[in-house]
Amino acid sequence: MKKLATYYVFSNANTPLAKVYKPIPELNDGEILVNIRYTTLCGSDLHTYCGLRNEPCPTILGHEIVGVIEEISATHSGTDVEGNQLQAGDLVTWTVFASDPNTASYQPEIPQKNERLYKYGHRQITEHDDLHGGLATHIILRPHTCIRVLPKEISLGVAATINCAIATSAGALRLAHTITEKNVHVAGIGLLGLVTIAMCKELGAKNIIASDVNPARLAMAKRFGASHIINLRDTADSHILQDITIDRFIDMSGSPDAMELGIETLGLHGRAVLVGAVFNQRETRIDAEKVIRKMLSIKGLHNYNYTDFSTAVDFIIDNWRKYPFESLIEREFPLTEVNSAIDYAINHKPIRAGLYIQPSTEQI
Amino acid sequence: MKKLATYYVFSNANTPLAKVYKPIPELNDGEILVNIRYTTLCGSDLHTYCGLRNEPCPTILGHEIVGVIEEISATHSGTDVEGNQLQAGDLVTWTVFASDPNTASYQPEIPQKNERLYKYGHRQITEHDDLHGGLATHIILRPHTCIRVLPKEISLGVAATINCAIATSAGALRLAHTITEKNVHVAGIGLLGLVTIAMCKELGAKNIIASDVNPARLAMAKRFGASHIINLRDTADSHILQDITIDRFIDMSGSPDAMELGIETLGLHGRAVLVGAVFNQRETRIDAEKVIRKMLSIKGLHNYNYTDFSTAVDFIIDNWRKYPFESLIEREFPLTEVNSAIDYAINHKPIRAGLYIQPSTEQI
Repeated sequence: MKKLATYYVFSNANTPLAKVYKPIPELNDGEILVNIRYTTLCGSDLHTYCGLRNEPCPTILGHEIVGVIEEISATHSGTDVEGNQLQAGDLVTWTVFASDPNTASYQPEIPQKNERLYKYGHRQITEHDDLHGGLATHIILRPHTCIRVLPKEISLGVAATINCAIATSAGALRLAHTITEKNVHVAGIGLLGLVTIAMCKELGAKNIIASDVNPARLAMAKRFGASHIINLRDTADSHILQDITIDRFIDMSGSPDAMELGIETLGLHGRAVLVGAVFNQRETRIDAEKVIRKMLSIKGLHNYNYTDFSTAVDFIIDNWRKYPFESLIEREFPLTEVNSAIDYAINHKPIRAGLYIQPSTEQI
Repeated sequence: MKKLATYYVFSNANTPLAKVYKPIPELNDGEILVNIRYTTLCGSDLHTYCGLRNEPCPTILGHEIVGVIEEISATHSGTDVEGNQLQAGDLVTWTVFASDPNTASYQPEIPQKNERLYKYGHRQITEHDDLHGGLATHIILRPHTCIRVLPKEISLGVAATINCAIATSAGALRLAHTITEKNVHVAGIGLLGLVTIAMCKELGAKNIIASDVNPARLAMAKRFGASHIINLRDTADSHILQDITIDRFIDMSGSPDAMELGIETLGLHGRAVLVGAVFNQRETRIDAEKVIRKMLSIKGLHNYNYTDFSTAVDFIIDNWRKYPFESLIEREFPLTEVNSAIDYAINHKPIRAGLYIQPSTEQI
């Protein structure tokens, strides 16, 4: 008799997920079956749940996932992207997308923008295509997914965030260019902002200025390495962006007000990287003459590429204990209580809520 | 008895330049005395003349200059930036600025933004500092000016524009990154726009789309290599930016409307370079979500660096006969008629008006 997987289906906004049992199919060429150990709820999962963004439905939400290999197709290369041998029992993380380099639209610097992309946690469930989201006991990794083996002692909650928030932060810093000895302004102190601050600290930034409207988040920013904090609702802080010449501005907030302030206060040859504004909003106004005379650059980043993913994995392996990353998973729930977890996340707005699956439990 | 130089002084907006005779001083360390042969009136000279921008006055306008070496200080290295021996009689072009690399604020990628900059055609005349503008018979090239020897057969009018319009266009294409096989949209068809189009053609761009509001300028764009033209006042042309996926947008117009259209219609991973908006204007509105999801980059360019200058010199040496560059100097005047030349340029808006000095004439 075939083993069963369990997953939780999202079909309509603001409607509890429905539990489904499904026999685990035979693996196709190049696939890997992973037993999910931990999934964190990303802001975009909650936006979808609340009807603020659309995914093809029905779907299995959850893409910040970590799990243990259960079975490897005989036709898989058998190694991770670093060349490490893969075997059942390995704890692994993987890119949120599988991008086929043989596609005509493939661009190595932006594999995440390939036309035919297999994106975990963002796909419609069909008769022959499921087990592709994190709110489940199992997931099947498709060919061209970039995989990394993780050390067994790592915090599962922290490891789950690598393939979304952490890798995107790594991408933002790649686009921001040199960080060492630079003054960096990070706006929007959610998980991406905090990770970006810690990464800037490790890269030897000169000053790291965090801005937000939430004092509790700004206090967290200090614990992740911010040298200065700016409460955007408190004009007493506003002198900081005059006193320090800002070389890099990284926006994780998505707020046009924050983006306008951040770009406006960049110094000569400054670079802005916009990441947060992935939702509908008013236009952002820039002074083109200042962009020209100060020779600024403004870049947009959506998701991340393979290099960013590897940078993120290395960063977390080296630093997950050095900064209070574990405290960011503010509450954990067993997968069976996924609807409670979603309610909690929507109502309390933690940095992250986590969903765990005990390895010994048959969660069906 | 010392030789005399003549220059024309600008002191007040909309007031004819005043002729001044001045003994040519002994050269200081590392200086070169150049006998000016040709100066073209740049748009910024005319803006200053009309009071639309401010320069420290009194000043000698004119920075698009070409001339012949008359004397070289014994302490000058004696070579141009390519290592060619310099000697009296050589026709030379040079960077519009001299930037001292020993200054703390010097950044090799943007020498033009050094704090202490000697910028020809933009300096106040003082007792010990003149002969630094193009509306004159002589100019003294200061240390740290990047010089290139030109072939003697080159058109003097075209050569005069190298160190402003041509070099800035080269800088725009450097910031735009790859041009080969790309679809490029150039907005604003003045000299910079036309040069940019010709450079894109030589670099093997796939399609070159020129946009402007002036049909005569758009017709010129075709002669410089544009594959498509868009009259921004004619909605019949607007489909072109939908039909062709634009990879690069280069704005020479400085019009917020043009910049907004150009950025809005960039395709995936597109790059915009803003050059034209060096005057006060309304804010430019961008859709940050599109910048992020399409992973766009927007960069500002002001002036150019040494690499751009050399690219520009090489481009003009190779191509000045291939495209109708000489036709862009729509009328020529002797230097003695500089005030007529300025009136003509303001009233007729040619691409360029030129001022020549016959080598045999003592224009004093």
